[in-house]
Amino acid sequence: MPHIPLPEHLPGITGLLEYRLDTAQPIRELTQLLLRGESTLSPGERELIATVVSSRNCTRFCEAAHTKAADLLLGESETARRVKQDIETAPLSEKMKALLQLAALTQQSGSAVTPAAIDRARAAGATDREIHDTVLIAALFCLYNKYLDGLATVAPTDPAYYQLLGERITGRGYVRPPGGYPTPS
Amino acid sequence: MPHIPLPEHLPGITGLLEYRLDTAQPIRELTQLLLRGESTLSPGERELIATVVSSRNCTRFCEAAHTKAADLLLGESETARRVKQDIETAPLSEKMKALLQLAALTQQSGSAVTPAAIDRARAAGATDREIHDTVLIAALFCLYNKYLDGLATVAPTDPAYYQLLGERITGRGYVRPPGGYPTPS
Repeated sequence: MPHIPLPEHLPGITGLLEYRLDTAQPIRELTQLLLRGESTLSPGERELIATVVSSRNCTRFCEAAHTKAADLLLGESETARRVKQDIETAPLSEKMKALLQLAALTQQSGSAVTPAAIDRARAAGATDREIHDTVLIAALFCLYNKYLDGLATVAPTDPAYYQLLGERITGRGYVRPPGGYPTPS
Repeated sequence: MPHIPLPEHLPGITGLLEYRLDTAQPIRELTQLLLRGESTLSPGERELIATVVSSRNCTRFCEAAHTKAADLLLGESETARRVKQDIETAPLSEKMKALLQLAALTQQSGSAVTPAAIDRARAAGATDREIHDTVLIAALFCLYNKYLDGLATVAPTDPAYYQLLGERITGRGYVRPPGGYPTPS
């Protein structure tokens, strides 16, 4: 049960974003810019960063939601599944492996990101902007993960929930649905 | 040296917020709302949350900047100094001690926030909104701390730097200076 009263039909982040609409707006905007805005990383690649960080923080709601988003964007479910087990043996380019390792280090602690890990990414062709965005996306998902778990929000166990949510965030993105979320009748 | 090229005259967060202006905007806005917006917690109390989290993440730039902001807002430097050493013996109300403990638990991990820690805050008079905001401020400063350290930004050692920065964020808040930051001549 969440630590503060949140509507039962809005689990995970969805209830928190309706709880305080003014702070939700810049959180949504930042997410939309980082995950869907112009970038040399595809939306699917950026969803993998969110997936790896949420998985390592053990935030089940975010892990399931962004795994599903990555699956839908990549058109297959093997990459997200394998990247959560082991970044190095997942079916990814050397550049994406290096960037996902940067995200995993950022999840541990910012100071865990070593010059060697940066050099590896750069040697594999990562740009300054890709390195910047990877660290910031990882930091943003640490915010989300702490926000959801710190207030003990609920993660549905039904995969159908994440299918719908994944379709929403790959279709419409991270903006608020016009008029908010419908109350179930 | 930062992992990506950032202007030398803009250390810590200041260079990052100029590096990508579009993502900086919602980060600034969220900070302004949470730390300066309407709240039953004073701006000084909210700066103490930022201070405790940054101190525990060992992010020197943020720790020094928000310690100075708290000092200026509270009109003394003992509280921030002592709260970084030990929340329980710092000169604070029971409610603020309980909320700062929630922030410290959120810094560790969202799932470290126990029902007992929430009950303590509530018994001391904390509202749902204060509990919500404390967790979200702590999560936001984990984002900042990981962003700064993950990209190896520089923390000036001169206390005069933080005096000026503290005056800026207590005076103008977290909005961007009109026209950005002047280049030193």
